[in-house]
Amino acid sequence: MARRLKTKLERVAFQGEPGAFSHVAARQLLGDKIQPVPCQHFEEVFQLLARREVDAAVIPIENTLHGSVHENYDHLLRYNFWIVAETSVRIIHNLIALPGVAFRDIRRVYSHPVALSQCLRFFREHPQLERVPFYDTAGSVKMLVEKGLRDAAAIASEDAARLYGARILRRSIEDDRRNYTRFFLLRRRADAPPLPRSNRQGRVFKTSIVFTTRNVPGALFRALSVFALRDINLTKIESRPLRGKPWEYLFYLDFVGRLDEEPVRNALRHLQELSDFQRVLGCYPKG
Amino acid sequence: MARRLKTKLERVAFQGEPGAFSHVAARQLLGDKIQPVPCQHFEEVFQLLARREVDAAVIPIENTLHGSVHENYDHLLRYNFWIVAETSVRIIHNLIALPGVAFRDIRRVYSHPVALSQCLRFFREHPQLERVPFYDTAGSVKMLVEKGLRDAAAIASEDAARLYGARILRRSIEDDRRNYTRFFLLRRRADAPPLPRSNRQGRVFKTSIVFTTRNVPGALFRALSVFALRDINLTKIESRPLRGKPWEYLFYLDFVGRLDEEPVRNALRHLQELSDFQRVLGCYPKG
Repeated sequence: MARRLKTKLERVAFQGEPGAFSHVAARQLLGDKIQPVPCQHFEEVFQLLARREVDAAVIPIENTLHGSVHENYDHLLRYNFWIVAETSVRIIHNLIALPGVAFRDIRRVYSHPVALSQCLRFFREHPQLERVPFYDTAGSVKMLVEKGLRDAAAIASEDAARLYGARILRRSIEDDRRNYTRFFLLRRRADAPPLPRSNRQGRVFKTSIVFTTRNVPGALFRALSVFALRDINLTKIESRPLRGKPWEYLFYLDFVGRLDEEPVRNALRHLQELSDFQRVLGCYPKG
Repeated sequence: MARRLKTKLERVAFQGEPGAFSHVAARQLLGDKIQPVPCQHFEEVFQLLARREVDAAVIPIENTLHGSVHENYDHLLRYNFWIVAETSVRIIHNLIALPGVAFRDIRRVYSHPVALSQCLRFFREHPQLERVPFYDTAGSVKMLVEKGLRDAAAIASEDAARLYGARILRRSIEDDRRNYTRFFLLRRRADAPPLPRSNRQGRVFKTSIVFTTRNVPGALFRALSVFALRDINLTKIESRPLRGKPWEYLFYLDFVGRLDEEPVRNALRHLQELSDFQRVLGCYPKG
């Protein structure tokens, strides 16, 4: 471990305990040679990156069952970072217990309330199991191990089981397998690498922006026209309230295209004519 | 009270204790002669209306600081009710204590975590006050009164103070006065009154719909064009994940117009050509 640290591992902040799905996403984005910096709240993740206490941050931005993580949209605006990559993680919930513990020994199951609510079929089939809400999925595995509980299990990622030396008793017990979370990798703008010059591998890129429209009829339609008229495909739109202007909104858009492409440059210039405020949040390979 | 009940007061479900901001909205929408039916969760509010245990329901749909109440958008789709009215309530947070309790006696302040977080300036000015998160704003006043606490206060609405016989020690201690919540009044479709035939008072109406687009480039732009081409003004757009189709979305739109107006009828027929699914959620006077 000490030797590894000398090679200056990248410090990567995320919300949750080691083994949380954000940690899984961080490894998916940056490989295993990172120094994970677990945080209690999303805001702390952003603060650590702003204070240069970490090199990068990984945040969830939307889930296919629950929708956007609106708090993180708000932080993306407040902290002026750059999205350098995206990835999506299939949320697989596993029933995890200490080594040597059998399924029949289990009385209670700890996990984050959202994870518990995503495994209702499993709990219906095993009504003897009591559900116990806990602050974190991976944290519930950590707690089992620390306390040596042999009549309880946790619901968490495979990474969490491996990390804390626990064992998976039942794999993939979630009700809906179309459960994916999309994550962003953020860096400070000054530290973001430039876009690769050419696009040799034919990789598709996406760009994320945020803007406000003038408060006039048809304003959003006209804003979207700057993309439609140039055949630029939108992949996501999200609206958030505009602070200080009740019933007006900020719009977050993701679209397919690179910032250095002519149609994208033209579309953003066109959008400036129509919007009071506009900011590019990042440009990154499609995950 | 017994006499009142005989006149068949409308039973109105809302989330929170009596005196909650949803109760304030219900009185704003229906007057004082209602029978409030407080519920613990939003889903319970919808269930009571579906089971005919109440005549109407009042739900918050968006707040100017926090954005949409996404859970209620999901319930609006699942339960096939009709929006018959909207209203907005200015969220005024008051410091409330038992009669005879002075400000200097107070050590702890109970309220819902969101309310506590909206009065940070007040707590900075009075660092001696400990913040204690509680499940409900009005519920914290109720608890003070029930337990007879004389060294504590609650943060809640003026209605809550009056209802539980408590006293307002400091009015309007919220940080941001541009704090409004918009509420919908829902009825079962069969019980919704018809739209007033003519529009004599020149009242402006709004219509709310939900739809999905075909998953093709420019689909949302084309969907919005059916309104823009007919000068129909959108007032709100909200996207929610489409269950079972990862990274596809449902769109909720509010626009200015009545369902019986020619341009609105044409726009909705036009939208049907472009969407896989479309449902009108209600048509109601602009609040």
